[in-house]
Amino acid sequence: MSELRFDPLKRKWTVIAPERAHRPIDLGKKVEIPENKEVCPFCPGHESATTKEILRFSGSENGDWSLRVVPNKYPAFRIEGDLKREGYGTFDIVSGIGAHEVVIETPLHNLSLTDYSSKILYNLFNAFKLRIVDLRQDLRFRYIFAFKNYGFNAGATLIHPHSQIIAMPVIPDLVVSMLKSSKSYFEQKERCLVCDILAMEYRSYERIILENRDFVAICPFASFSPFETRIYPIKHSHDFTTLNNNELLGLANIVKEIFTRLDRSLNKPDINMVIHTSPPLNKRPSHPEYWNSIFYDYHWFLEIIPRISGYAGFEWATGFSINMVEPEEAAKFLKIVSVT
Amino acid sequence: MSELRFDPLKRKWTVIAPERAHRPIDLGKKVEIPENKEVCPFCPGHESATTKEILRFSGSENGDWSLRVVPNKYPAFRIEGDLKREGYGTFDIVSGIGAHEVVIETPLHNLSLTDYSSKILYNLFNAFKLRIVDLRQDLRFRYIFAFKNYGFNAGATLIHPHSQIIAMPVIPDLVVSMLKSSKSYFEQKERCLVCDILAMEYRSYERIILENRDFVAICPFASFSPFETRIYPIKHSHDFTTLNNNELLGLANIVKEIFTRLDRSLNKPDINMVIHTSPPLNKRPSHPEYWNSIFYDYHWFLEIIPRISGYAGFEWATGFSINMVEPEEAAKFLKIVSVT
Repeated sequence: MSELRFDPLKRKWTVIAPERAHRPIDLGKKVEIPENKEVCPFCPGHESATTKEILRFSGSENGDWSLRVVPNKYPAFRIEGDLKREGYGTFDIVSGIGAHEVVIETPLHNLSLTDYSSKILYNLFNAFKLRIVDLRQDLRFRYIFAFKNYGFNAGATLIHPHSQIIAMPVIPDLVVSMLKSSKSYFEQKERCLVCDILAMEYRSYERIILENRDFVAICPFASFSPFETRIYPIKHSHDFTTLNNNELLGLANIVKEIFTRLDRSLNKPDINMVIHTSPPLNKRPSHPEYWNSIFYDYHWFLEIIPRISGYAGFEWATGFSINMVEPEEAAKFLKIVSVT
Repeated sequence: MSELRFDPLKRKWTVIAPERAHRPIDLGKKVEIPENKEVCPFCPGHESATTKEILRFSGSENGDWSLRVVPNKYPAFRIEGDLKREGYGTFDIVSGIGAHEVVIETPLHNLSLTDYSSKILYNLFNAFKLRIVDLRQDLRFRYIFAFKNYGFNAGATLIHPHSQIIAMPVIPDLVVSMLKSSKSYFEQKERCLVCDILAMEYRSYERIILENRDFVAICPFASFSPFETRIYPIKHSHDFTTLNNNELLGLANIVKEIFTRLDRSLNKPDINMVIHTSPPLNKRPSHPEYWNSIFYDYHWFLEIIPRISGYAGFEWATGFSINMVEPEEAAKFLKIVSVT
């Protein structure tokens, strides 16, 4: 089983997951990725190549399913086993209990970012919602999130469009930071930090790319990476899974639009997409810590990061990045790119 | 001028440096890197291609210098200008005052990791020391560090062996974490955190790769990335620049050994190398905060990170990493690899 280890100096967790080294891509060496549908484990007809199905959306014109969720064959976290938290001298260890699922987004073997339809993205976000709601029932899981690696430079090892859902037994450092910022800002002002940021962004409008009824897409003021895009729900909400069907469609539409604009303007970049939503309440209302663990002051969001700049010594040494594109310029560029 | 911007949600700084976009490598697109000595700006005979020289070590058998330090032609930080710290609504901005220097490590145009001699590395570390000591005189600089990007995957844009030295107007988040961990551990135990970690490592010896009189090389317990190596001075010291010539040579020797072993065992990986040393004292003894700002409880170290695994959605979402190689296995492997 994998384990989480804590570095007491840098105050960072790492997942040591030797089992994943048996994946088709060992240690980052570029190996042959099956271009060929005949050997793709995610293509229709090869359903037996994947492990037991967790969720299926039925039929499309291309076959008898439109989306499937299966357990990751090389999981970083596993459902089975006891959750142990131990000290080891100056170090801390938590066992790698959790879940690691793969969403096969479509029966189609290969999609460019421009090919993504609202329907495929609607299905994807709906699957994220259903799986996160289900995984929240397991009180061992402290954080559940969903992400997509698109393209080899973004960490994908298979071409067939897929995403991942992970449940883990600790709340990650970065998420703790965001929860703390939100809580302390709210305590001080009785307002949401992100709602205040959005009010500022609306006033200047120089970093807003586009919006629809329920969502707004922004190049954040302190973008870590060029053309980084955050999509926020305009109405305050701490929890992605509260989206109704109309809102899921609104999210699908704005993501489709951003995918297309990035694809055309940046010459088919690889991308990562991440959903940051509030952690589950792993305490019950009767628990004395319950009221400190509610996250209504948090504002969930989605990030899309084109992988066009690297991670080098500077980033490793500082945790900072050097971003060569002003977010205002990036937003202006993405605002005017023609998508017709 | 570049500027540092703070993300109040993630609590992370970013350097927005649009001037660097004019570098030969725009937005991560792989462009032609001059393989050819004739057009290399760092090769002997092309000294006029670089900006004004800051430091030069004299002659070697290959020419009239063995190492040069010059200002970076595409700097992320500049000496000139006023250091401004301003608020902008919910955001913070600090002007990009600092220094950004390039160390041309040798007149030789191309070196494999195995080619690095103790002499070249001794010169490099000596140059780091001299430049850091000099830059510390400018009280605007809150942090000064040195790093090396070797190979395209590690962020290098020129083949000719070079490193970088940066001075910046804030202490980076990651460094603040390490300083805080060290200070709070010392306050509690009157012992250094890293010295205690080293004592543990010596007892088990399962993550130690090798050592010499003054230094020990370890695969850290919570390694973020496969085959990550930390080199610690065995004797407690918070400050890299206190190394005498014998110790600089000891450091050069152990780094040479690690370079060679990584090169042979991982099939010529690209690497990053980073020196983490204590920040300068930018307050004078008469200043009331002086005694809180001394860093004797910190333990400087050097990191070498082979770039054999990527940064994907999981890392972006959590700040964690998934490391597929147990540090104990990595150390065992690097311990036995033949270097003769």
